[in-house]
Amino acid sequence: MSDSAAAKPAGRTILASTIAKPYIEEVTKGVQALDFTPKLVGLLANDDPAAQMYASWTGKTCESLGFHYEVVNVNKNDLEATLIRANKDPSIHGIMVYFPVFGDKQDQYLQQLIAPEKDVEGLNFLYYHNLYHNVRFLDPPHNQQKSILPCTPLAMVKILEYLGVYNTILHYGNRLYGKKVLVVNRSEIVGRPLAALLANDGATVYSVDINNVQQFTRGDDLSEHRHKVIDLDPSEASLEKLVPTCDVIITGVPSDSYKFPTELVRHGTVVINFSSSKNFNDDIKLKAGLYVPSIGKVTIAILLRNLLRLIDNERIRKEKTAAEAASS
Amino acid sequence: MSDSAAAKPAGRTILASTIAKPYIEEVTKGVQALDFTPKLVGLLANDDPAAQMYASWTGKTCESLGFHYEVVNVNKNDLEATLIRANKDPSIHGIMVYFPVFGDKQDQYLQQLIAPEKDVEGLNFLYYHNLYHNVRFLDPPHNQQKSILPCTPLAMVKILEYLGVYNTILHYGNRLYGKKVLVVNRSEIVGRPLAALLANDGATVYSVDINNVQQFTRGDDLSEHRHKVIDLDPSEASLEKLVPTCDVIITGVPSDSYKFPTELVRHGTVVINFSSSKNFNDDIKLKAGLYVPSIGKVTIAILLRNLLRLIDNERIRKEKTAAEAASS
Repeated sequence: MSDSAAAKPAGRTILASTIAKPYIEEVTKGVQALDFTPKLVGLLANDDPAAQMYASWTGKTCESLGFHYEVVNVNKNDLEATLIRANKDPSIHGIMVYFPVFGDKQDQYLQQLIAPEKDVEGLNFLYYHNLYHNVRFLDPPHNQQKSILPCTPLAMVKILEYLGVYNTILHYGNRLYGKKVLVVNRSEIVGRPLAALLANDGATVYSVDINNVQQFTRGDDLSEHRHKVIDLDPSEASLEKLVPTCDVIITGVPSDSYKFPTELVRHGTVVINFSSSKNFNDDIKLKAGLYVPSIGKVTIAILLRNLLRLIDNERIRKEKTAAEAASS
Repeated sequence: MSDSAAAKPAGRTILASTIAKPYIEEVTKGVQALDFTPKLVGLLANDDPAAQMYASWTGKTCESLGFHYEVVNVNKNDLEATLIRANKDPSIHGIMVYFPVFGDKQDQYLQQLIAPEKDVEGLNFLYYHNLYHNVRFLDPPHNQQKSILPCTPLAMVKILEYLGVYNTILHYGNRLYGKKVLVVNRSEIVGRPLAALLANDGATVYSVDINNVQQFTRGDDLSEHRHKVIDLDPSEASLEKLVPTCDVIITGVPSDSYKFPTELVRHGTVVINFSSSKNFNDDIKLKAGLYVPSIGKVTIAILLRNLLRLIDNERIRKEKTAAEAASS
């Protein structure tokens, strides 16, 4: 590598806005094809300025693409009742809550209280269960209603498709066959479902958290339908050993002080950060084949895509109910 | 892996005919756009039945796509004179000789005797020199006349593009950045130029022959414009160590008894055989992500594409000469 500070990287930095473009177009066309304007409600029950900014940004994006967006400020202790009313309100098509609210397990209860039919973020237990078990439809054996995937993991899949990591020549469902992916973050919201999703698509995933490294895989030859999880022996699974073997490194460490060790990264690796903190120093650009420094703009496009999918699933259910009523 | 003999592979076998299709179409359109029928001449000066079959097959393909093809049977000792006449004959646009003729260094002399302007196989020293030095045009700085690439290495590039090994999101010229490729064959005709071509496009290539393993690379960070070659330490460069790290394995061993050791291949690897012998046992299908068992149909499409390129380069040269004459 040249010592020059102006060394020109062999790889490229790809912005989320570029990757989001086709999904923004898809969502814009989708909403135009409806005979009503879908309404997304964001329930804000904390006074975190970051959450307020995110809510405001979500609102602007929604309105610019032709969706209604309403942020509802609510007292923590009124959130449950507000949520139940929103679940029942037929004028509301999607609901999201800005967490943390209580910052403890009560938040999980509230999250699960969002009706699956309005859960744009795909955080309901039903959707996670389908993701973990590689179940892609809500209505087997008809398979008309696609299961909803959590926004950030699904955004990551779309990003990896854009970057050419998914190989479209391989069979659908096996398109990450032979790829090794490191995911630093094993949260229930993103890291663990993401590792499962990528393993279900054929990758060998190393899932890293502060305690250990786990391997998610459908077996070397993908003979299993869904992934299994193996705790790796710490002596075999150091970052020093694993990182140079990986095709893709994905980080989501919510800390400004955390930096991924660039020196371990093999030249030409695909590198993606989904944390709102900058998990890589800029020297990663001299190593990464493709580097995506943040993904928020893809995530919001996927959120609205999920909203349209919820609306479509509802339409299919109604048509089915009507057909059954007519034939009985 | 399942012990069942009927185990369904996770990967796919891709036939050369599938990959050749767009090039066959390109070549068919290209020849239709001309106001004459290009003529390819094959000089056959040996009595090897395989060469005769290959000549006959080339002829059928040429005629079916709208090219003239003439096989000329000639005595070894008349080959030089016949070649010189063919070089001068304006009705002949492309020339190929079926080697081996004498089976010694005289064959190289004869090969170099084919006029570069008619060398459809791209075997002239000029073209190899450009390939090794990553020079892509014949007429710098105008860069209108593309250099000809030898058929089989170029066919391999097209195959790797089809298979998604070239990543089109990366900059042109760096699209194999981060990829590791093993090439078993280091002949002057295919193996060595192939290793150089892939390294020039950003790959780390391990070139294997009966004597040793060499690494072809533009440097980890692709800071060099063209590849350099490093002899690897045999203790570091055993197939046992290298093969499991490779994304792509390419073989071209001209022996029916040679079989690549499948047990070393990592699941999901891209595997391509360009030898007319079968270098892999069928169990490779249970390991390969994508497996291309032979490439001949792509190579012939590329041969005809080279012929059209030679014709186009000639047109550009004539137009330039005419323009210069008019302005002087």
